[in-house]
Amino acid sequence: MTKRIYFDNAATTPLDPEVLAAMMPYLTEHFGNPSSIYSYGRETRMGIENARKTVAKLLNAHPAEIFFTSGGTESSNTAINAAIADLGCKHIITSPIEHHATLHTVEHLQNAHNIKLSYLKILENGHVDLHHLEQILADSKEKCFVTLMHANNEIGNITDIEAVGNICKKFNAIFHSDTVQTVGHFPFNLRELPVHFITGAAHKFHGPKGVGMLYINENIKIHPFIQGGAQERNMRAGTENVYGIIGFAKALELATANYETNSTYIRSLKTYMMEQLKMHIPGIGFNGDTSNNSLYTVLNVSFPKTEKSEMLLFNLDIHNICASGGSACTSGADQGSHVIRAFNNNPNKVAVRFSFSKHNTKEEIDEVIQHLKTMI
Amino acid sequence: MTKRIYFDNAATTPLDPEVLAAMMPYLTEHFGNPSSIYSYGRETRMGIENARKTVAKLLNAHPAEIFFTSGGTESSNTAINAAIADLGCKHIITSPIEHHATLHTVEHLQNAHNIKLSYLKILENGHVDLHHLEQILADSKEKCFVTLMHANNEIGNITDIEAVGNICKKFNAIFHSDTVQTVGHFPFNLRELPVHFITGAAHKFHGPKGVGMLYINENIKIHPFIQGGAQERNMRAGTENVYGIIGFAKALELATANYETNSTYIRSLKTYMMEQLKMHIPGIGFNGDTSNNSLYTVLNVSFPKTEKSEMLLFNLDIHNICASGGSACTSGADQGSHVIRAFNNNPNKVAVRFSFSKHNTKEEIDEVIQHLKTMI
Repeated sequence: MTKRIYFDNAATTPLDPEVLAAMMPYLTEHFGNPSSIYSYGRETRMGIENARKTVAKLLNAHPAEIFFTSGGTESSNTAINAAIADLGCKHIITSPIEHHATLHTVEHLQNAHNIKLSYLKILENGHVDLHHLEQILADSKEKCFVTLMHANNEIGNITDIEAVGNICKKFNAIFHSDTVQTVGHFPFNLRELPVHFITGAAHKFHGPKGVGMLYINENIKIHPFIQGGAQERNMRAGTENVYGIIGFAKALELATANYETNSTYIRSLKTYMMEQLKMHIPGIGFNGDTSNNSLYTVLNVSFPKTEKSEMLLFNLDIHNICASGGSACTSGADQGSHVIRAFNNNPNKVAVRFSFSKHNTKEEIDEVIQHLKTMI
Repeated sequence: MTKRIYFDNAATTPLDPEVLAAMMPYLTEHFGNPSSIYSYGRETRMGIENARKTVAKLLNAHPAEIFFTSGGTESSNTAINAAIADLGCKHIITSPIEHHATLHTVEHLQNAHNIKLSYLKILENGHVDLHHLEQILADSKEKCFVTLMHANNEIGNITDIEAVGNICKKFNAIFHSDTVQTVGHFPFNLRELPVHFITGAAHKFHGPKGVGMLYINENIKIHPFIQGGAQERNMRAGTENVYGIIGFAKALELATANYETNSTYIRSLKTYMMEQLKMHIPGIGFNGDTSNNSLYTVLNVSFPKTEKSEMLLFNLDIHNICASGGSACTSGADQGSHVIRAFNNNPNKVAVRFSFSKHNTKEEIDEVIQHLKTMI
């Protein structure tokens, strides 16, 4: 098999063999339905509840605040719908650079339920304007729901969600943060963080696909989004994805244990790639904030637009290099990135996102730079 | 490890080793995000689309009618919500013996959206009264949505969904059938069956947990229930559970290939257990229709109520025998079965569901009968 260079870890990451090993007993002998009362059921129920305790402990939350879902998108859908249906919010405040799991959901609520929808201004460096947030909240006559992602999946910018949460608190607003790019990549202390909902997806940090998490602050009471059986303490119906849940917890455990080492190493790769690009590619730039208010995993590069650079992703693929034009969830659509458009709509640039994991090396970066030199 | 007798296959089934083997490449090297455009993504995209073609072929549907979800509950939630939100239905007709995934969803719609809700009469043998259905449809002034399960998960009764579909057609009603207990257990010919939505859950037929299917008839256009990225042709957002989807298709393939052999064998187990119970346990009865209009996998036994029989499930568990009081999804609740209550509310009986798979044997039944004799 040809050697591939996988620089699209913000789209998804390979499952860790250790995580798969933790899942295997639940893919084989421990198959009981966790809702059953007999021993087969109790062993999978125990597996799930231990996973919940592990996740809660790692994020410094209460186990009763952790709910497992089918992924980050379902988690965000649940939180956003509940804010309107259950928590009395009539005004949604978000930003134009959110993931589509947020944007499409809030647009739907605006249309179907006549909810007021406000978008925050985006600064030139890709950050949301928190003064604007404070202003909208101060001016709003209705109960507000604020949904802002922790880190942007395309440009990597990190929003200070503690600051956002404190602003929300001041105006009695409900705050949801899509933390899909940061859970498993940064430490969380949910007992201190003023947030009502956060989300996670295991496959973003070397866990399995098809499983996610929703944190619901204990002071918030909502109804389930998916209705039916009494699973997840009546908050998410449907037979539990047991191996997925076990995998989520194991992946988060490993990510947390190795956070210092991995984040330092991956950040050094990002820095190295920035340096090499500046050195070797004329006219290069970066989208978003490349300082420390940014994911260490994501580098969004702005290439001068030429006939060749427009074909960049395809040419990279020919050389077995995986990178992306933006969010994987929209890459089929080929209408450019709504994120880049929102703050820096330069038609003379081509954006390519490179995103790294612990498995990448400087040698891979060197190889990519060599190819880029011939491609531009 | 102690030998267990697992007679709760309607709750969940063990994953087939062949299914796990088909999933393994996607749990290891084929990890790309299927929405990505490069080779890593294309191989998982191809895996998903081949799975969709396989499932479509086995159910005799078009691939464009098959959508993968996180499970049967999500599938039913999607269909039921869409009937109201997208298809203009204002009157829901269902039965009191549906699964909670249906009942809780329709109750919610009744309350939140002021939808009319009618329940069909249940005959003494546990079947729904189709004359009543026709009558309600004839009397309704509004567009109707009919949701009736194909086979009841607790008592095993099979509803003639072709007949239901033809009645619905006559009155221009939308028809959804929860087929979670029959997909993978009976042949389907969806090009001939007059139904708009059916559902499936892989873990009910030796596939993985956390993955389901929703069939949407090609003449029906609905919006997604979970919103976000453009996955599943814009019908179900969220990074696909790739290994789950591969497992769903493989499990359905095996189930279909071995249908004749397995169904004949499992039916013989059910018949044998009925005979043995009648022979050895005085006062025994059966809930629901035990004729051929019934799942070959499910036997719901009615024991005379005594101090001992009330502890039956616990005593069976002590002897490592897994059976259930009803739906696994509600077994924590301990409020009795809403299904049994709906047609045969006899306070002097205790209901126990035994449900079988190809892995069970007559010897296991003999052993269970021996234990039951001492327990009653």
